[in-house]
Amino acid sequence: MTSSPIPITPDPRLDLVLEREIDVPVEAVWEAWTTPSSLREWFVPKPWTIAACEMDVRPGGLFSTTMRSPEGEEFPNVGCFLEVVEGRRLVFTDTLLPGYRPSAKPFFTAVLELAPMGEGTLYRAIAIHGSEETRGNHEQMGFHEGWGIVVDQMAAYIKAQAGA
Amino acid sequence: MTSSPIPITPDPRLDLVLEREIDVPVEAVWEAWTTPSSLREWFVPKPWTIAACEMDVRPGGLFSTTMRSPEGEEFPNVGCFLEVVEGRRLVFTDTLLPGYRPSAKPFFTAVLELAPMGEGTLYRAIAIHGSEETRGNHEQMGFHEGWGIVVDQMAAYIKAQAGA
Repeated sequence: MTSSPIPITPDPRLDLVLEREIDVPVEAVWEAWTTPSSLREWFVPKPWTIAACEMDVRPGGLFSTTMRSPEGEEFPNVGCFLEVVEGRRLVFTDTLLPGYRPSAKPFFTAVLELAPMGEGTLYRAIAIHGSEETRGNHEQMGFHEGWGIVVDQMAAYIKAQAGA
Repeated sequence: MTSSPIPITPDPRLDLVLEREIDVPVEAVWEAWTTPSSLREWFVPKPWTIAACEMDVRPGGLFSTTMRSPEGEEFPNVGCFLEVVEGRRLVFTDTLLPGYRPSAKPFFTAVLELAPMGEGTLYRAIAIHGSEETRGNHEQMGFHEGWGIVVDQMAAYIKAQAGA
């Protein structure tokens, strides 16, 4: 069945949104998001690092990242991709494990939407929660600052690669 | 991105599987599953009925059914579709609401897989759970009997329509 992707309309009561215009092309952003060796370079605010990353970029496929604190403590995150529209939309969640198995620790779904804007990209990341409480926790964990920092890190990484 | 659908391998400890060979064609089964007015006719074992059904058959789209007991009590179920491979695979879950929002009452993911078999269909329905407890509850609720009855009801409905 061919149908247009479902529109995602954030609910201000439940969701968190980061929207930015960035001066790197859509194709490079897509590549940075869907290549484990690239994602490891920018996906968490430094000096945190990504100690491991695995991806099977298709619906139901594994998306796993292990964040490492500056002190060396590791925090694994496992979920799956839900929707993959090349260069435009990437949806993933920790609510379901690979193969769509319900998770014991559901937290949120993330929607990344990209659109070309001149030679740059309109970048929109939405965190979708099931309750105001979960949204509030995510905001207090530093959603806006953290997700903003990693967009800067990603753009700097893309430019460094392009210039390398 | 074009990639083959992820293989679904049931885990006997966590999942429930109903596999049947039925003598109605794949296209008719797909139609019966994805058309609300058809689904209402067979989706719950009679004398239970489906009082209401809404579908937006695409990833993240609404899948809502309201079951009505013979005594008239109604039980709404809301979830969303995850994967739609026309005539072959339909995945939906109550773990996520429409637009991929985490649900407050996650229970299971369902995978329907169809394959042509002569003029009939190899029909496989898998219920994917997050724990042995959830799987056990679903089994005790009558998974095998219930899902088996509705396959028979569906095949009878398809034949009646074809002969009408």
